[in-house]
Amino acid sequence: MEPTLILNEIARLTALQALIEPIAVVVFAISGMVPARLKQMDGVGVYIVAFVTALGGGTLRDVLLNQRPLFWVENQEYPILILVLVLIFLYAPRFNLPFQPLAKRYFNLFDALGLGLFSISGTAAALAHQIPLFPATLFGVITGVFGGVLRDVLILEIPMIFRQSTSLYATCSFVGCWAFVLGLELGLSDAIASLLGITTTTLMRLMALRFNLTLPLGPGKTE
Amino acid sequence: MEPTLILNEIARLTALQALIEPIAVVVFAISGMVPARLKQMDGVGVYIVAFVTALGGGTLRDVLLNQRPLFWVENQEYPILILVLVLIFLYAPRFNLPFQPLAKRYFNLFDALGLGLFSISGTAAALAHQIPLFPATLFGVITGVFGGVLRDVLILEIPMIFRQSTSLYATCSFVGCWAFVLGLELGLSDAIASLLGITTTTLMRLMALRFNLTLPLGPGKTE
Amino acid sequence: MEPTLILNEIARLTALQALIEPIAVVVFAISGMVPARLKQMDGVGVYIVAFVTALGGGTLRDVLLNQRPLFWVENQEYPILILVLVLIFLYAPRFNLPFQPLAKRYFNLFDALGLGLFSISGTAAALAHQIPLFPATLFGVITGVFGGVLRDVLILEIPMIFRQSTSLYATCSFVGCWAFVLGLELGLSDAIASLLGITTTTLMRLMALRFNLTLPLGPGKTE
Repeated sequence: MEPTLILNEIARLTALQALIEPIAVVVFAISGMVPARLKQMDGVGVYIVAFVTALGGGTLRDVLLNQRPLFWVENQEYPILILVLVLIFLYAPRFNLPFQPLAKRYFNLFDALGLGLFSISGTAAALAHQIPLFPATLFGVITGVFGGVLRDVLILEIPMIFRQSTSLYATCSFVGCWAFVLGLELGLSDAIASLLGITTTTLMRLMALRFNLTLPLGPGKTE
Repeated sequence: MEPTLILNEIARLTALQALIEPIAVVVFAISGMVPARLKQMDGVGVYIVAFVTALGGGTLRDVLLNQRPLFWVENQEYPILILVLVLIFLYAPRFNLPFQPLAKRYFNLFDALGLGLFSISGTAAALAHQIPLFPATLFGVITGVFGGVLRDVLILEIPMIFRQSTSLYATCSFVGCWAFVLGLELGLSDAIASLLGITTTTLMRLMALRFNLTLPLGPGKTE
Repeated sequence: MEPTLILNEIARLTALQALIEPIAVVVFAISGMVPARLKQMDGVGVYIVAFVTALGGGTLRDVLLNQRPLFWVENQEYPILILVLVLIFLYAPRFNLPFQPLAKRYFNLFDALGLGLFSISGTAAALAHQIPLFPATLFGVITGVFGGVLRDVLILEIPMIFRQSTSLYATCSFVGCWAFVLGLELGLSDAIASLLGITTTTLMRLMALRFNLTLPLGPGKTE
């Protein structure tokens, strides 16, 4: 592949990330704000739960990889954005109204895109730290899903992605991470392999939602 | 300001910290021991919950800032002190008796002072690591309040500071952190800005308790 | 003591660790898989809970000591082994059957050995980072028991080792860690002191189980 082609790809990928990441942060934050409010939390609770949901997975990745500055320190617009969102959500909900139909319509799409983006960025960061393939895919899953796990711990629920009734979520992240690393192993460029991974996770998640796919239960039981 | 004056201030501040910090650790540890005991925990549970309540916020700060040794490794008298407190609390409660009226009377005062001190020390540590103002104030809040959040996770309660009925707590920490960083921006010395921040947090917290101030609920509701 | 003798001891200890550690990981993982399944979790939940139970204490130790690579990145066979175990447990339980009587019989023995091994390895790692004796023993306890604490947080239970009805567990870890550091202080070789510590923890735990030893309740009560 010619260098300019690769450079174009990387530019497109960076543009894609710059476009998707803030929307994914918003969508993940909303998925923290709503259940926090339902648990009768005040503004502090809603903000901290929204923060942890949106930024917790990436924070855990940075801590486990020993990478500093933390990504929400480097991108301080994310915690500020979440603060603004929480203030609007709690105190000026009429500003929400025009966006609610939009949010409802596209929530799952952007949540699935965010899952794909965070998973692949987590795997890529792990590979950049010379972490072997299998643990690197686990770093991808941690980055993609642990924000939601920490949210559920804070609101005292069994983590949603652990429940039998939940359609595939962490599994989509895991499969997309493997599509990404196998793509790299097969000689695809970073950009193409990333797109492959993100697309795999996102499409698989959307199909899991549409057809209500869950993990098979299996015959195993306890005692 | 003359150099000697500043040096005097710093000396006073260090003395203040040396005075307040151990008392704050004791007060925070007590606020972990009591609910742990109410949950029928044994000595191990009471110690770990007291440890996490008193030292968890600072540990999280050190981990997120990548600062070592951890402050309770450098000040190993803190975990030892908490062990002694737990042993007295569980097995020699009559040694407590003379202190109980004192503890009841001054608990809120020292908890508010501890909140102020930990919040400002967390913000100062973040600034020393070149972290921008807004995230630095978040580090202050994390240092001040996350011990209590982790306590509530371990005893299976919705974190107290997230509940609508709780009078302002994290908010006092946040406002005090901003008083501190704005004081620094306006050219105040470290010592004066620290005193300003600690005083702001402490007085605001005491007023919140006295007048039962809570965050306004706002018209926002879910669905 | 002659050098060759010490070398022999170290070789024996390393062989012991190479033998015990994988078995301990399996036993700890099982002690996560079973309660996760009882909480109706799917494969993702069972895997993450098993992972956290078996590898969470060591991960926390590595993070707090700022040690990289994480031990489950360096030994990536552990997370892979846990994945295989979970798949067999859920989807091919008949492969379990021949091992179940064996597992039931030796579960407590290997759990106690694992507790001893992890506790001493955590203390040794802390000492290698120049951490003073008392905090070093706390690192041992964290390494030995925090996997189980994090498991209980994820499955929404008060941590088992905090409950009055639980026979001594963290206490055995703590006592064994002190046996190890005091052995070192008294001039024992690393290998002998490690064996002393592991044996102390393991035997104390087995006795606690057999005679149902718990911490004394003490006269302390709250209010």
